[in-house]
Amino acid sequence: MDSEYPLLIKQILTKSSVMSFSQEIVSNPNVRLNYHEFTGRLGRLANSLTAKGISEKMRVGVMDWDTHRYLEYFFAVPMMGAALHTINVRLSPKQVLYTINHAKPDLIIVHQDFMPLIEEIKSDFECETLIIPIGYGEKYEEWISRSSTSFNFPEFDENRTATLFYTTGTTGDPKGVSYSHRQLVLHTLGLLAGFGVFSGNSGLHRDDVYMPLTPLFHVHGWGFPYAATMLGLRQVYPNRYDPETILRLIDSEAVTFSHCVPTVLSMLLDHPHSKKVNLSRWKVIIGGSALSKSLQRRASEFGIRLHAAYGMSETCPFLTVADLSSTDPDTQSQTGFSAPLVDLRVVTPDMHDVPNDGITTGEIVVRAPWLTKGYMGNLKGSNDLWSNGYLHTGDVGFIRENGSLQVTDRLKDVIKTGGEWISSLTLENIASSCSGVEEVAAIGIPNEKWGERVVLVVKLLNNAVPDLIRQDLLRKFREHVELGEISKWAIPDNIFYVEQLPKTSVGKLDKKVMRKNVLNLNEKSDDG
Amino acid sequence: MDSEYPLLIKQILTKSSVMSFSQEIVSNPNVRLNYHEFTGRLGRLANSLTAKGISEKMRVGVMDWDTHRYLEYFFAVPMMGAALHTINVRLSPKQVLYTINHAKPDLIIVHQDFMPLIEEIKSDFECETLIIPIGYGEKYEEWISRSSTSFNFPEFDENRTATLFYTTGTTGDPKGVSYSHRQLVLHTLGLLAGFGVFSGNSGLHRDDVYMPLTPLFHVHGWGFPYAATMLGLRQVYPNRYDPETILRLIDSEAVTFSHCVPTVLSMLLDHPHSKKVNLSRWKVIIGGSALSKSLQRRASEFGIRLHAAYGMSETCPFLTVADLSSTDPDTQSQTGFSAPLVDLRVVTPDMHDVPNDGITTGEIVVRAPWLTKGYMGNLKGSNDLWSNGYLHTGDVGFIRENGSLQVTDRLKDVIKTGGEWISSLTLENIASSCSGVEEVAAIGIPNEKWGERVVLVVKLLNNAVPDLIRQDLLRKFREHVELGEISKWAIPDNIFYVEQLPKTSVGKLDKKVMRKNVLNLNEKSDDG
Repeated sequence: MDSEYPLLIKQILTKSSVMSFSQEIVSNPNVRLNYHEFTGRLGRLANSLTAKGISEKMRVGVMDWDTHRYLEYFFAVPMMGAALHTINVRLSPKQVLYTINHAKPDLIIVHQDFMPLIEEIKSDFECETLIIPIGYGEKYEEWISRSSTSFNFPEFDENRTATLFYTTGTTGDPKGVSYSHRQLVLHTLGLLAGFGVFSGNSGLHRDDVYMPLTPLFHVHGWGFPYAATMLGLRQVYPNRYDPETILRLIDSEAVTFSHCVPTVLSMLLDHPHSKKVNLSRWKVIIGGSALSKSLQRRASEFGIRLHAAYGMSETCPFLTVADLSSTDPDTQSQTGFSAPLVDLRVVTPDMHDVPNDGITTGEIVVRAPWLTKGYMGNLKGSNDLWSNGYLHTGDVGFIRENGSLQVTDRLKDVIKTGGEWISSLTLENIASSCSGVEEVAAIGIPNEKWGERVVLVVKLLNNAVPDLIRQDLLRKFREHVELGEISKWAIPDNIFYVEQLPKTSVGKLDKKVMRKNVLNLNEKSDDG
Repeated sequence: MDSEYPLLIKQILTKSSVMSFSQEIVSNPNVRLNYHEFTGRLGRLANSLTAKGISEKMRVGVMDWDTHRYLEYFFAVPMMGAALHTINVRLSPKQVLYTINHAKPDLIIVHQDFMPLIEEIKSDFECETLIIPIGYGEKYEEWISRSSTSFNFPEFDENRTATLFYTTGTTGDPKGVSYSHRQLVLHTLGLLAGFGVFSGNSGLHRDDVYMPLTPLFHVHGWGFPYAATMLGLRQVYPNRYDPETILRLIDSEAVTFSHCVPTVLSMLLDHPHSKKVNLSRWKVIIGGSALSKSLQRRASEFGIRLHAAYGMSETCPFLTVADLSSTDPDTQSQTGFSAPLVDLRVVTPDMHDVPNDGITTGEIVVRAPWLTKGYMGNLKGSNDLWSNGYLHTGDVGFIRENGSLQVTDRLKDVIKTGGEWISSLTLENIASSCSGVEEVAAIGIPNEKWGERVVLVVKLLNNAVPDLIRQDLLRKFREHVELGEISKWAIPDNIFYVEQLPKTSVGKLDKKVMRKNVLNLNEKSDDG
């Protein structure tokens, strides 16, 4: 040890372990630890894993709900020099098997709820993997309680892999991305420097109470558990997501800061208990997919302060943030301003910057010190991701004169009709402004004459009358055409009503499935 | 260029250069630039330096006041891969010569006010150094205006030296410390993550207006110009410090965030115009030396929101921060909580941690990713600084149960009397609570019987009566002895009144000079 100071996850604890000894980490249903106990438990877990044969550079998988245990995995496993594989428990058994056979973890810690899944796929494991069943958590407590709190967490190269997980697009096998200690420490600083510098009650502050509402297997809970721990915040872990429990915890534990995808927020506000709980001190970061104007309006009626953040599995994920409650219209844009150190460009296919005119769209490409270096064992995918020295987000957007970014679509979801590119997001915003529309997706369906034509897939509110909604929707679109905001090609050709919109395992609209379903329907109606 | 992303000073600009194109950088007397113009000028300066023969790894010295030009030096010189030597213009000609002959800059940019100094010492330069006189700034404008705004700032190893300067203790020659790109970028993130996460109107936020009041040659203005630029803040540069001008700028430019040593704050509040200016929206970081209770009280009467920060030239400087306006007494301590990633310990001479009991003192030692790796060309000094793998601050303090730090003294200023260590800071706080005392220093004077005895050196307010003050001071000390807060050995043996307290070039009390002066006086009185 000398004047060198590598960026390691254990350094995230240096401040909070001193200043927050008596601060609480709460885990539903009945665990309360202070930071002093928490750091002692990291030693116990590391010793327990060592006793099972885990050493530096090995891989530890976890299948568990969002509890204090997950926070312990986040720290203890990388701190001992091993890599943490956060297994996405929402994937199909076949996909889970694929990710395990691809990552080859040496050991997997498994909650009782996922043991049936493990039993189902275990015989197809292509690796020697020790399974540690932890029951409903009681066996975990028993296991780690046998070990000492004292563990000498080593120092090593900051570029060593700390975490890895798999991202599922709508095509192909899940792709593995990994992050190093250096990247996670820098991302944590980036989150604090990006979210902390909002004044007043915006952003993330030392007096916030934190509760994640993004599954912790998903991009390490967007990195916020690391940021909350660095600040020494009071933290609340909700266990398996249940709207009633979450609302109760927000109330009883005075939670002020969470992050989730729009679907989770919508689910909470739909719950009858949402009216019984004071949500006016709650700040929520929305990410993962676009926030509809209607959900934004509903949240603000509850007094919830919304921020929108933009990022993806490959970007750790933080890229940009916007304060949706700000009175400054420049920061109200859904995508906002890039985080410190994020070099974000909107470019043409040959990598020329488009003008920052708030109109011209292009692909969003980025550099930052916390982007994944590629897909594990997938050179072709990695090269595509990083072509021309920038990470290609696959998102389309524009930059306003003031420098704020607006994502308008996924590159593959842009609807190309009548010689124009139409943003599906813009169309979805128009459609969701109709009362009676609960959720909506705009997709492009191949058309010989026009290239593609617009189709809406709509989930109605219970009491809505489909025919009236149809008239209302078409009227709204025509109004926006007359205002010059969209071209006449953007008026939907057809509207389909469905019970549920197809979603991916992380809750994003699955437009690939929708396009297939609509095409099947069209074929059938052609046949009939 | 690939997925690697070194931490370079040019990355600090990535965010602000996009989002703050129209944000202003104001420089007294009459310069107003927006960030777009500012970044263009960095290209001009880099091209102009290149034309003078400056290339990567060379050294550029600067002797200038705190203007927009200094901010340009901070960015353009390191960004072109050269090292910036910020010459301390307050040193004696002999010391300036020493630092120049030690650092051997290839070129020095010199403001007209420092040309006489350069003329005086130039013949003793032991290096080939090109002098670029810039007049009062007009020649600088002329010089850089001849070059293009376009410069391809290279990428290189993040560990390359970006800045260097000399720190003057009270003994020996000035010692050179340097910082790498990586260290400065991490320090900038540390400042945002440390100061940004205060809620409400505390700390540093996106809507602040920044003006430095610590000379920019001193530890690169404590790193705040980099932090302000990363946030894209409106910035105001005061030029040569003049109380009237500074007060006017705070008012007219709506400055909300500054940093300075106590002496500068005191000087501003003493100025008659301080009553004419609204200072109630002004936040000030106090560092460099301890803030007296009386100055803290005066500042709060003006409605100024004070933070105290702790650090030193060798630590870049940020180590800890406290919010002195907080209602939480835990954060009111003058030293506060350590910054993110700062591993701070209070230890015995054999490196054992003292208990966090709020009483037991020891030396403060630290690790952080932004500490200087040593003194340039001074192996012995570097080894002492970094003995046992921690940077030794030379400061004495204790840690409270809640984890907050309190610095109580400089190791070398602790007064050892009657077998006890007495904090000179505690004694100075007691003394400064007497009305009539403007400034005070407590020092230890060798004494055969007791080891050392306490002597106060006092600067009185104009209308104070020395004999009354003496009675008042001794009464105050006896009260604190009776309350058990200090030992009876702490009652001063003698009180000296002086016109000015001796200070170092950066405004710190120079107790070495005081001890010498008092000893001389004693000798004389012994002789007489």
